[in-house]
Amino acid sequence: MLQPRPAAAIRRRTIFSGIQPTGIPHLGNYLGALQQWAKIQNESALDATLLFCIVDLHAITVPQDPVALRESRRQMLASLMAVGLDPQRSILFYQSSVPAHAELMWILSCQASVGYLSRMTQWKSKIGVADSASLSDPASRKKLKLGLFSYPVLQTADIVLYGATHVPVGADQAQHIEFARECANSFNHVYGPVLALPQTILSPAKRVMSLAKPSAKMSKSDPDPKSRILISDSPETISAKLRAALTDSVPGDVSYDTAARPGVSNLLEILWHLSPEGTYEGIEDVVKDCQGLSLRAFKEKVAGVAEVHLRPIRKSYEEAYKKEEGRALDEVEKNGAERARAVAAKTMVDVKQAMGLA
Amino acid sequence: MLQPRPAAAIRRRTIFSGIQPTGIPHLGNYLGALQQWAKIQNESALDATLLFCIVDLHAITVPQDPVALRESRRQMLASLMAVGLDPQRSILFYQSSVPAHAELMWILSCQASVGYLSRMTQWKSKIGVADSASLSDPASRKKLKLGLFSYPVLQTADIVLYGATHVPVGADQAQHIEFARECANSFNHVYGPVLALPQTILSPAKRVMSLAKPSAKMSKSDPDPKSRILISDSPETISAKLRAALTDSVPGDVSYDTAARPGVSNLLEILWHLSPEGTYEGIEDVVKDCQGLSLRAFKEKVAGVAEVHLRPIRKSYEEAYKKEEGRALDEVEKNGAERARAVAAKTMVDVKQAMGLA
Repeated sequence: MLQPRPAAAIRRRTIFSGIQPTGIPHLGNYLGALQQWAKIQNESALDATLLFCIVDLHAITVPQDPVALRESRRQMLASLMAVGLDPQRSILFYQSSVPAHAELMWILSCQASVGYLSRMTQWKSKIGVADSASLSDPASRKKLKLGLFSYPVLQTADIVLYGATHVPVGADQAQHIEFARECANSFNHVYGPVLALPQTILSPAKRVMSLAKPSAKMSKSDPDPKSRILISDSPETISAKLRAALTDSVPGDVSYDTAARPGVSNLLEILWHLSPEGTYEGIEDVVKDCQGLSLRAFKEKVAGVAEVHLRPIRKSYEEAYKKEEGRALDEVEKNGAERARAVAAKTMVDVKQAMGLA
Repeated sequence: MLQPRPAAAIRRRTIFSGIQPTGIPHLGNYLGALQQWAKIQNESALDATLLFCIVDLHAITVPQDPVALRESRRQMLASLMAVGLDPQRSILFYQSSVPAHAELMWILSCQASVGYLSRMTQWKSKIGVADSASLSDPASRKKLKLGLFSYPVLQTADIVLYGATHVPVGADQAQHIEFARECANSFNHVYGPVLALPQTILSPAKRVMSLAKPSAKMSKSDPDPKSRILISDSPETISAKLRAALTDSVPGDVSYDTAARPGVSNLLEILWHLSPEGTYEGIEDVVKDCQGLSLRAFKEKVAGVAEVHLRPIRKSYEEAYKKEEGRALDEVEKNGAERARAVAAKTMVDVKQAMGLA
């Protein structure tokens, strides 16, 4: 018989988050998610369970080159370690190493409404149709693959599989966490209080823009590698990329104005966020500190701060990635996956017993 | 690196089929599928791999009572053994015992087109909308759950997971096997020749109609238990159900005319299919054999033949089901699931290597 697990309210904190295997993260990934994850790890109570997952099953909802994907997963894993996630403390693993993600996804999909999913916006942006598009539109249906359409249900499974109580995400993912709560709630409504409903931990918004086109977010998909700084970039590369960063020819001192001076404002933000904590009270403080600097000197200042901030991360990345030609990384993942499977197995027993599948 | 497996053409025969956990099968299930499976098993070459799966993950695409589902899975397993499937020779297992069904389903769903799926007819009949309905119809979208819509992709995974070369199915499933071939083919097109494309073995059409409403198929979903004969029914129950079978008041001898005399024609078919092989050359032969019988005597004749045919099946069912209060059944399933997982694991290694997920 089903022994219901304690309700979410009295459960110990379990934190889950996921990141796509996009290779070595850039500053946008780092400041938007990874830095926050390390902070959460370091500030968590000892009895909290922490899981950080490289979501390769989400990655394949769009075409991937197999050789590049295999490499990108390892680069991301090395990066998680490099930014300070400790594989002893946090469970680091690939999503595809835990079959229960897909199992629970299927089970939840039997409760998930096609109508609700058709109103989500992410599949629309990924196949390049308007947010107002619907499944009634033949062009949508023709381009759309089932995996991309079903993505939010897999994301729900990712979270509830571990009984996650808290999920650190960016504001753009809030719609999906709301869906996850709905979906877990429908399951519980039918089968009893089996799944924990996750809470969102909204990551502080640190939007990092492209160095080449500062009106767009810094992104891996930009073909120009100078548009982004990677966490493993050498001091020379960082300097060169920042020297080439697109700014403007407004005369006089730097100033913060994201609409009129997107390039300069972006560099000010980067300077702020990469400076040691407490250096600045706010963005005005950063602007004040840069008064009297030429654009060139300003860029050099940003480069200097970025180099100092990223130096230990780069070193640690190189160590993690190169050790024993990557075999050490595979060991870390194997161990993380085993621990993740053990946590997942408990939920799956409860789920299957509640459904009559065990 | 990926070592492609031998192409389907030179693979040894692997036969896969699935049945829903609907409890003890009725004559329609038996004559439409199970009897054929036993025949296939007994006529297969020794090097053929045979898998017969109780598809509980498909069952949950419509609401299920957990207690009933748990019981129905075991009843179906005992029934497979009762009709002659030998768990040493054939791999008998529950779908939910092999997580790779759902894993491969997710992977294939990343290639499966929402447009193609929306044209399939099964989801429409299950939510009670017309075959001409589409996802554009708000009523369809509102009622439709993702699992039911995605069903054909899970069915594809079921088959290709085991490298099945042949799939015995009824004519109503031919559309789904065509979809499975398309789906496996798209995967191979992108990732190389990893998945075997299955061939259909079309089961001989033996339509068994309801005893109570002979215009409808014999079905578990009819609330009237007298509408169907179960393979475990006692001689008394068989006689009683056949005595009560709806026929007609056409005077004179029995005759075969499915439109004008559906009840009588159904009983003639049942008599034919349950008589020892070779008793009749065709349905005309059956009709001839029953000349001069009153309707009552005709029904008794059918009951007698059904009793003789089902007696060993009933005995064997009772033995399988009751042995050690069902624990022996659980052992059979555990063993089957282990063997199924071992076959599935090979395909998953190939699939994951081809995709860069291993």
